[in-house]
Amino acid sequence: MSGLIAVVPDTRPVMHEAFTGAVRDAGGEVAGTAGLADAQAMIWADPYAANLYPELIAAAPAVQWVQLPYAGIEPFVDHLDERLVWTCAKGVYADPVAEWVMAALLMGLRDFHVFAAADSWCAESGRNLLGARITVLGGGGITRSLLRLLEPWGCQVTVVRRTADPVAGAARTFALADVHQAVTGADAVVVALALTDETRHVVDAALLEAMGQRCWLVNAARGGHVDHDALGAALRSGVIAGAVLDVTDPEPLPNSSELWGLENCVITPHIGNTREMGLPLITNRVRENVGRWLAGEELLGLVDVALGY
Amino acid sequence: MSGLIAVVPDTRPVMHEAFTGAVRDAGGEVAGTAGLADAQAMIWADPYAANLYPELIAAAPAVQWVQLPYAGIEPFVDHLDERLVWTCAKGVYADPVAEWVMAALLMGLRDFHVFAAADSWCAESGRNLLGARITVLGGGGITRSLLRLLEPWGCQVTVVRRTADPVAGAARTFALADVHQAVTGADAVVVALALTDETRHVVDAALLEAMGQRCWLVNAARGGHVDHDALGAALRSGVIAGAVLDVTDPEPLPNSSELWGLENCVITPHIGNTREMGLPLITNRVRENVGRWLAGEELLGLVDVALGY
Repeated sequence: MSGLIAVVPDTRPVMHEAFTGAVRDAGGEVAGTAGLADAQAMIWADPYAANLYPELIAAAPAVQWVQLPYAGIEPFVDHLDERLVWTCAKGVYADPVAEWVMAALLMGLRDFHVFAAADSWCAESGRNLLGARITVLGGGGITRSLLRLLEPWGCQVTVVRRTADPVAGAARTFALADVHQAVTGADAVVVALALTDETRHVVDAALLEAMGQRCWLVNAARGGHVDHDALGAALRSGVIAGAVLDVTDPEPLPNSSELWGLENCVITPHIGNTREMGLPLITNRVRENVGRWLAGEELLGLVDVALGY
Repeated sequence: MSGLIAVVPDTRPVMHEAFTGAVRDAGGEVAGTAGLADAQAMIWADPYAANLYPELIAAAPAVQWVQLPYAGIEPFVDHLDERLVWTCAKGVYADPVAEWVMAALLMGLRDFHVFAAADSWCAESGRNLLGARITVLGGGGITRSLLRLLEPWGCQVTVVRRTADPVAGAARTFALADVHQAVTGADAVVVALALTDETRHVVDAALLEAMGQRCWLVNAARGGHVDHDALGAALRSGVIAGAVLDVTDPEPLPNSSELWGLENCVITPHIGNTREMGLPLITNRVRENVGRWLAGEELLGLVDVALGY
């Protein structure tokens, strides 16, 4: 494939600079304004400027591949064109959320929330994530990233999803209807579902009871998945071991919530994936995809133009 | 290989039960008292009863492999016999310490120590371990376990050891003499060294200065590796970002230490590897090795009888 690659528009200087660097790092040549007519690929460098696309693609008739900078391609849906290969950042943004889940699991199981608040030498405590039984509710991108990060830990992972179709890397898969069975005996339950009528308050008093007193709840999805009143009661009375929540209902969680006062409940301010974390991740994806393009290999994050995602 | 395996002695019921379960889980048959004469392998189930070994091995003449339950085999040195294959728990106990390091890295970089102590919604903050630059001082068992756990995170790992011989999984290796160069630009420095005259206070004011204000210090080795006065000053003035210490000098760290009062310093009570964590880990090793034995594969933790370790 040709190494001449356009990085456009230049309306967001920080992103533009990062992507041009990534193209060069991967061995590509960045097309200047004069070179746009010969560019074979186009890296789009401003998520908020889809309106500039028609003019720029018209000036770049040799382009065969367009890389978009985000996972959801809604602003580009009207521009998708089957004659081109389109890629987006699918999957990229799941990694920091999966990392947040790992941080939450390790903090809870190893009692780091206790040590972080201590002002004197504590008693020995903590359990291992190594070899633990982890149940993940949800079988999407966050779960796939999490399974990848968990791979060296020797955990027994159970995945709960709409259907019981197997998930690579999981020891067991259950349908959502069998969620109570799936959480029984778990050391931690991770919520990584989409929020629908079916999954709202999936973590209710009965599920917390089924999880049991050794189990941590880790919510990386939406506050609406958890019945917060039931959770507060379960945490107060030791029905479960503890909870780490990156999402609450509502957000921000008001100071009046009883959850703030519970030692076994840690709330992080929806930072699974922060604005700052995004740019390095999508820059890595651009570098990886430019390398694959130049080598003639399959690109990551391919968009199905017919389906529009 | 024969599936008849003796688990002896039965003087520690909890360990004996765990190991017999592991043998069965791996597909082996547990030899009862009557079956000892035909057992082909012996899993030793009491670290404090090496004195019983001569009598039991005499009653089990068909044994070809002996699995010992701990990493150091000192109590068995007099019984080692070159006609048998010996394995011990080498490497098993490094895993929980490496897990502690992962928990410390994630807590520090993702600001979980701040969130754990918060009683209201915080500002967005935190950085990724994904893709971070990590410098590990030490090239032994903990480092090997840590490199294994870090494998999916895409980190740029630098290892510092006595010599600059390469370490599998590390991007760069430096000799201890070049430690200042090795920590420059790191997002975190992990101490996993043995404590010797050469390594005492390796983390001093000058090294902290070289680490810089974005860098976390994580000490999983010995308190004597760190000059605590220099560390306190560096944490107060923002010379480094923060510290997570599982070891201090002295231990327990007295309440009068200024480190207790610093938000960017978390101290855990030497729990890299707790007493409770040991049994599940060695049980996993027994299960793994019985599976390998039955499949005719190489066993983990082989003891070199001639060398005695």
